[in-house]
Amino acid sequence: MKKVQLNPVGWMSQLSQVEVSRLQDATNSELFAMFRNCCLAVLNSGVDEDNFEALFAPYENFEIKLIRRERGVKIELVNPPEVAFVDEKLVRGVHEHLFAVLRDLLYMGNKYAFLHQTAPAEGNDITDMVFDMLRHAKALEGNDGVNTIVCWGGHSINQVEYKYTKEVGYQLGLRDMNICTGCGPGAMKGPMKGATIGHAKQRHKTGRYIGISEPSIIAAEPPNAIVNELIIMPDIEKRLEAFVRLGHGIIVFPGGVGTAEELLYLLGILMNERNAQQPFPFILTGPAGSEEYFEAIDAFVGATLGPEAQAKYQIIVNDPEEVARTMSKQLEKVKKFRGAMGDAFSFNWSLKIEQDFQQPFIPTHESMAALQLHSDQSKSDLAANLRKAFSGIVAGNVKAEGIAQIKKHGPFELTGDSALMEKVDTLLESFVKQHRMKLPGSAYEPCYVVKNS
Amino acid sequence: MKKVQLNPVGWMSQLSQVEVSRLQDATNSELFAMFRNCCLAVLNSGVDEDNFEALFAPYENFEIKLIRRERGVKIELVNPPEVAFVDEKLVRGVHEHLFAVLRDLLYMGNKYAFLHQTAPAEGNDITDMVFDMLRHAKALEGNDGVNTIVCWGGHSINQVEYKYTKEVGYQLGLRDMNICTGCGPGAMKGPMKGATIGHAKQRHKTGRYIGISEPSIIAAEPPNAIVNELIIMPDIEKRLEAFVRLGHGIIVFPGGVGTAEELLYLLGILMNERNAQQPFPFILTGPAGSEEYFEAIDAFVGATLGPEAQAKYQIIVNDPEEVARTMSKQLEKVKKFRGAMGDAFSFNWSLKIEQDFQQPFIPTHESMAALQLHSDQSKSDLAANLRKAFSGIVAGNVKAEGIAQIKKHGPFELTGDSALMEKVDTLLESFVKQHRMKLPGSAYEPCYVVKNS
Amino acid sequence: MKKVQLNPVGWMSQLSQVEVSRLQDATNSELFAMFRNCCLAVLNSGVDEDNFEALFAPYENFEIKLIRRERGVKIELVNPPEVAFVDEKLVRGVHEHLFAVLRDLLYMGNKYAFLHQTAPAEGNDITDMVFDMLRHAKALEGNDGVNTIVCWGGHSINQVEYKYTKEVGYQLGLRDMNICTGCGPGAMKGPMKGATIGHAKQRHKTGRYIGISEPSIIAAEPPNAIVNELIIMPDIEKRLEAFVRLGHGIIVFPGGVGTAEELLYLLGILMNERNAQQPFPFILTGPAGSEEYFEAIDAFVGATLGPEAQAKYQIIVNDPEEVARTMSKQLEKVKKFRGAMGDAFSFNWSLKIEQDFQQPFIPTHESMAALQLHSDQSKSDLAANLRKAFSGIVAGNVKAEGIAQIKKHGPFELTGDSALMEKVDTLLESFVKQHRMKLPGSAYEPCYVVKNS
Amino acid sequence: MKKVQLNPVGWMSQLSQVEVSRLQDATNSELFAMFRNCCLAVLNSGVDEDNFEALFAPYENFEIKLIRRERGVKIELVNPPEVAFVDEKLVRGVHEHLFAVLRDLLYMGNKYAFLHQTAPAEGNDITDMVFDMLRHAKALEGNDGVNTIVCWGGHSINQVEYKYTKEVGYQLGLRDMNICTGCGPGAMKGPMKGATIGHAKQRHKTGRYIGISEPSIIAAEPPNAIVNELIIMPDIEKRLEAFVRLGHGIIVFPGGVGTAEELLYLLGILMNERNAQQPFPFILTGPAGSEEYFEAIDAFVGATLGPEAQAKYQIIVNDPEEVARTMSKQLEKVKKFRGAMGDAFSFNWSLKIEQDFQQPFIPTHESMAALQLHSDQSKSDLAANLRKAFSGIVAGNVKAEGIAQIKKHGPFELTGDSALMEKVDTLLESFVKQHRMKLPGSAYEPCYVVKNS
Repeated sequence: MKKVQLNPVGWMSQLSQVEVSRLQDATNSELFAMFRNCCLAVLNSGVDEDNFEALFAPYENFEIKLIRRERGVKIELVNPPEVAFVDEKLVRGVHEHLFAVLRDLLYMGNKYAFLHQTAPAEGNDITDMVFDMLRHAKALEGNDGVNTIVCWGGHSINQVEYKYTKEVGYQLGLRDMNICTGCGPGAMKGPMKGATIGHAKQRHKTGRYIGISEPSIIAAEPPNAIVNELIIMPDIEKRLEAFVRLGHGIIVFPGGVGTAEELLYLLGILMNERNAQQPFPFILTGPAGSEEYFEAIDAFVGATLGPEAQAKYQIIVNDPEEVARTMSKQLEKVKKFRGAMGDAFSFNWSLKIEQDFQQPFIPTHESMAALQLHSDQSKSDLAANLRKAFSGIVAGNVKAEGIAQIKKHGPFELTGDSALMEKVDTLLESFVKQHRMKLPGSAYEPCYVVKNS
Repeated sequence: MKKVQLNPVGWMSQLSQVEVSRLQDATNSELFAMFRNCCLAVLNSGVDEDNFEALFAPYENFEIKLIRRERGVKIELVNPPEVAFVDEKLVRGVHEHLFAVLRDLLYMGNKYAFLHQTAPAEGNDITDMVFDMLRHAKALEGNDGVNTIVCWGGHSINQVEYKYTKEVGYQLGLRDMNICTGCGPGAMKGPMKGATIGHAKQRHKTGRYIGISEPSIIAAEPPNAIVNELIIMPDIEKRLEAFVRLGHGIIVFPGGVGTAEELLYLLGILMNERNAQQPFPFILTGPAGSEEYFEAIDAFVGATLGPEAQAKYQIIVNDPEEVARTMSKQLEKVKKFRGAMGDAFSFNWSLKIEQDFQQPFIPTHESMAALQLHSDQSKSDLAANLRKAFSGIVAGNVKAEGIAQIKKHGPFELTGDSALMEKVDTLLESFVKQHRMKLPGSAYEPCYVVKNS
Repeated sequence: MKKVQLNPVGWMSQLSQVEVSRLQDATNSELFAMFRNCCLAVLNSGVDEDNFEALFAPYENFEIKLIRRERGVKIELVNPPEVAFVDEKLVRGVHEHLFAVLRDLLYMGNKYAFLHQTAPAEGNDITDMVFDMLRHAKALEGNDGVNTIVCWGGHSINQVEYKYTKEVGYQLGLRDMNICTGCGPGAMKGPMKGATIGHAKQRHKTGRYIGISEPSIIAAEPPNAIVNELIIMPDIEKRLEAFVRLGHGIIVFPGGVGTAEELLYLLGILMNERNAQQPFPFILTGPAGSEEYFEAIDAFVGATLGPEAQAKYQIIVNDPEEVARTMSKQLEKVKKFRGAMGDAFSFNWSLKIEQDFQQPFIPTHESMAALQLHSDQSKSDLAANLRKAFSGIVAGNVKAEGIAQIKKHGPFELTGDSALMEKVDTLLESFVKQHRMKLPGSAYEPCYVVKNS
Repeated sequence: MKKVQLNPVGWMSQLSQVEVSRLQDATNSELFAMFRNCCLAVLNSGVDEDNFEALFAPYENFEIKLIRRERGVKIELVNPPEVAFVDEKLVRGVHEHLFAVLRDLLYMGNKYAFLHQTAPAEGNDITDMVFDMLRHAKALEGNDGVNTIVCWGGHSINQVEYKYTKEVGYQLGLRDMNICTGCGPGAMKGPMKGATIGHAKQRHKTGRYIGISEPSIIAAEPPNAIVNELIIMPDIEKRLEAFVRLGHGIIVFPGGVGTAEELLYLLGILMNERNAQQPFPFILTGPAGSEEYFEAIDAFVGATLGPEAQAKYQIIVNDPEEVARTMSKQLEKVKKFRGAMGDAFSFNWSLKIEQDFQQPFIPTHESMAALQLHSDQSKSDLAANLRKAFSGIVAGNVKAEGIAQIKKHGPFELTGDSALMEKVDTLLESFVKQHRMKLPGSAYEPCYVVKNS
């Protein structure tokens, strides 16, 4: 039995004894199982595998323990994956990531009582919590440059698309922009990899490659090798809020349902009238050959949310330099706006996010069936409901709990008015046809059926 | 009417909107008046005056305001003292200190509800609060070197003594030790001043000159010009705990009742059996000509607490090099002990401090009269009670509230068994005789009478 | 006509007026034409093209000027390649490289009178010059870690080999080793690229990617995008000396004649009896499928220089981790040896290099024909002569001057005893057969004929 | 016999073997005796004594050796003064200073062949040498802020004057200005000491306290404890040139003949027509009570060099804040001028210094007698000659060689036209009367007689 003890780093190296006690109290909680799994995912950083069962299977006898010292807490790994070690020493980046998981899941989890209690009632409090988590992660320091670009897109894109995300990242890096993504492979890794080369050429030595994950997704998308700041938000909604308040602009690459979910989330927020003045750089881009994806998305948005939604983003095909140049110019407007508003450069306080976008949506057969999927509501509400529908499908595809539900009860049923449902159906089928639902090599079995009401 | 707005620095530059709201809510509280006064004291940094009325009189129309921005909080000064400005710009050190006051008094004050609520019930919690405040002040970072020396002593010592404290500081600085004192002039400034020269010669570029104050004393002892880290603990007891847990060794220079209070506090703790193993460097020192002071103190300690108390400290007369060398050697033992105990280098968790030493003692005519001043109790309890008696006298001498009480009700009455009270009387008279009760130039009127029970 | 002026950086930002005058005096020299060409190569950094004529053709109207200011010297670029700019701003890395060229070619060129005078007579002086150039380039600072690995190998290797060099670089980077290569694509880029990922994972923030070039080769092998320190040595021999004195270990990947030249150079030195005690990590490695290359080399070394030469290196096939682990262990011996010898960690003074290895060999039809290629000499001399022969072939293959000579006079003729010449012939043919003589896509026309004497 | 070996630091830690050989060759030279004495002075840093014989007497058995290692050079001290050590370890600042002496005296001495050869013929070359020495000392890096203030004044000023120089330094430090002086006590230490407090309050962490000395003066004025950069120029004239080209403004405090020499040097240069456009902040200042000094100087300047000379400086009495404020404003003009001229911020290339001010003046009875001290010459020439006369008197007062000459041949004789000589006489007598010729406590015996021609 191999055992490795790790000294705390970062924020976790300065804990009070009461805080350490509380961490230890969490050892038997449900949260701790999640903690163990996230750590296991982190220890598998860089391994390309999105089937969490396949990933975790070899490590059934992996354990993680918290060891109390007068001076604070240590982590003990029992039978950890060999891949995280170099000549018997844990890779330093992985070491840091493990304590990021401890910080975000257990320490902040204790502070905000994730899971055990209902979520804080007021939206204001949720934004504060998001801020507080980013602050503890030291993600706000050094975010004053108005140059953090969030990149969304699929984790299982093809080689041409992957290469394209690298080129876009390279062009962003050449312009001193930092990259923030969702942590995994594919479109979440490519821009980071490209940016490292751009940063190197520009001698930009403090390049940031921020990965924002959440407990239910990290197993499927462990942080890639480039991520040098890992943050784990407690649920999807807070993760999405972290993206849009921390980032200064957003680029969407081809992806699957998850990417569509993110896009609908952002559209729903930007269509809020109180955000009408917000300059928010928002670019959809992909290589020649991937037009189909954006056409399908754009058609869907146009048909469901209308041209005012389409006006929120810009589609650029096959031109990485143009993407970076456009982003660069629009960031100037963001800077001006923040200055004029008295808003922080490092955190977008002034962006209004309604509670419906903040409250966790927990996909079950009931909650999915209950979604209001009809055109007879405000565009912002419609965006919110579509976002939830797609969120549920992501869960059914890759998340442990979602998959378990599908196994037990069969596919989720989505119902709504027939015109709308047809558009949803068309979009989802286009994803399946473009092989955007799974890592290459496996056939996709849909976790949902679309019904007309 | 002159107005100056200040942007936040340090921890205070990253506040959430809820936190800012809470700060603003404090604007009308009693705490805010204290905040205003502490800021005024900080703005008078470096001015030699221990009469807070004389210090504050010219600034009746001084106001301080908190201004809310989307991005956080700003401080606005109305009619601030000119002395804090250079060519119309606020001195950067003062700027930092003001936000330290905001952090410790209002931000931490909100967190721990100072004043408004009763103090936390358990000793453990108090230690955690002390730790948390030092952590927020970033005082623990960089305190791993086991080289922070706390210097106690009077603020109104004579020139020979002052020069001696500089020489000791110089020798400490030459040995790469940092200085932590109570913030004001005299023995609190000299060691810092000397250490800057020692540090300069040794190219020790990160010299720390930590001042730990508390709201009721800061007006009388504003931070001297050298202090580069200011921390304001909510009350005397937490301030004393901060000294002994943050510092790695303690030097006591000649002083008055306040110094005697500090010395009794430390003796009381070190005499606790559970601290018997703790190596705790503790040196009393002064120049030739000040022997009388230490003789009086040592005689008093011997007569009241006995030789086991005397064994806790070492008296070195007129030999700055020997002081520094001795300290240096003993720090090695501290380092070993912390390592062996698994204790932190930056914070002495393993030192046991009983609740009686942690709970605030609020000196009133009643509480002073009620003190158990007789030999018929454990040495540690006796030390605790004597400490409180001296604490009350300090309040009656220099603190606003204490002085007001004395004005209204006459001197505090101390009662106890006659043998003990005689020793107390002798010690206090020796202080008066040595002119250690007030800044030079004014005659001392005792704020207490000693009665035999 | 586009003009861009550049302010000096690094060492070149602090020149005296006399030094600036001397730089300007060089404007009309032959050296200046070389300076222009090197700058042009640097401006094409990252472009994959090893035919200097194809590379330079589009830039006939490119000019470079030195502009004198009271404060120092500026560079003016006229009609520079667009590829070096991002949104009209020169890439900072390229900016730095241009001043590295100015420093090494003109400033140091003036100091040591490159080209204009005969080379310094004594070997000692040459070593001093090499040291001085590395010192000016600030390459010695930060080289104390005994972790700089020189990687040699071809610039036109195949994809499998390229990927392998990246993997080796990755494993070296994971072990905190820095990379030094000859500056171009292929085996000179792969290890650097891999190391950046290894360094990122280990949070090794000061990763060094040193490129050492020389004027006649830089056009064919412009610095790749990763190089963050560029050094241009005046000739091949000083470049080779810089490699072996700056680096702490050497890895040889598959390559062509140039790689064979480097290998023979190092073998010749290590076989010197005065270097018998020197631990010098020296590993030949390549992926599965490239064994043929090492077999040919090893057979040639065995047949010509004997088993004592073969004992100087270790061949590891298809095991990047083993390469890095072996290197890591051997570096410990280097560290011990340097310590024991009182030698510098940053520069290998104690390695003995005979004058025959230091004096420039200028390949002409005469000098090539005059080479002593027979077995009837010491092994070290034989290695030196073989090295020269291969050096000439490199010139005939890729260097402007060499190619011009071949065009004019036909192939170089190599003569020697038939047994030896046969072995040379076999080796060279194996290179041709393995397509190691040119970038893929062009057929190789030999620039030499082998004759038996 | 106590021996201490020191590893090289700074520039001296990277020497080539040829450079080390040359250093060792210097071991038997006359320069080496000077090197030994400068080192002894440095080892006595902070000791208040301006009689070099008294200073050196206890250390007759002190020796210094250079030890050659493969990797470079070490210094060995034999029987060094105890005062430079703390607990058997050499103070780091002193350690650095010793290698500064080695660098400037032996390394640069070898490079420029000080003493052994005649000085370089052309003025241009001298300026280049001054630049080169400052560059090697890394004094130019970090001098771009146009905020280095040179302070001249006596080393034996009274307590009121000393305190005043501290206050001026404090006000300069509060305005982020750095201090450069001649290295010793008195007016050379006060401004540095004051500035450290000003810098501390403004959190100016890179405060520079540059001491520029020369071999014949360093024994009498060893670097004070604050100096953190020591530079030793080969002779007085190069030291003066270093002051005026490195500094951005000059403040003159009360002093003696040496101070008068410096003042005349600067006036002579500023009166050069080619410097007419140069803004050069030049302030004479002292406390109330020292007016007499400036009146005497100002009267002398007015009477000899005329009102155009008086217009070059500004006299401010007893107002440290006004001094600093004035300096601060004038530095803005310097910044603009340098920008407009294309001159460096870190070194004043554009200031014209005639050869007569650059060539070493070696005071002997002959050269002193030969000085042209009459009004019948240009003002600039007159200033140059008066400067030399005063330079000779400084030598006769405090320099070893000068004192020896006076002992042997009696006082220097100065001759010139009677009107001028009377003014000289008056000025010098006023210095004697004000006790500005020697450290307090000793009577002054003039080393000169003034004769009318």
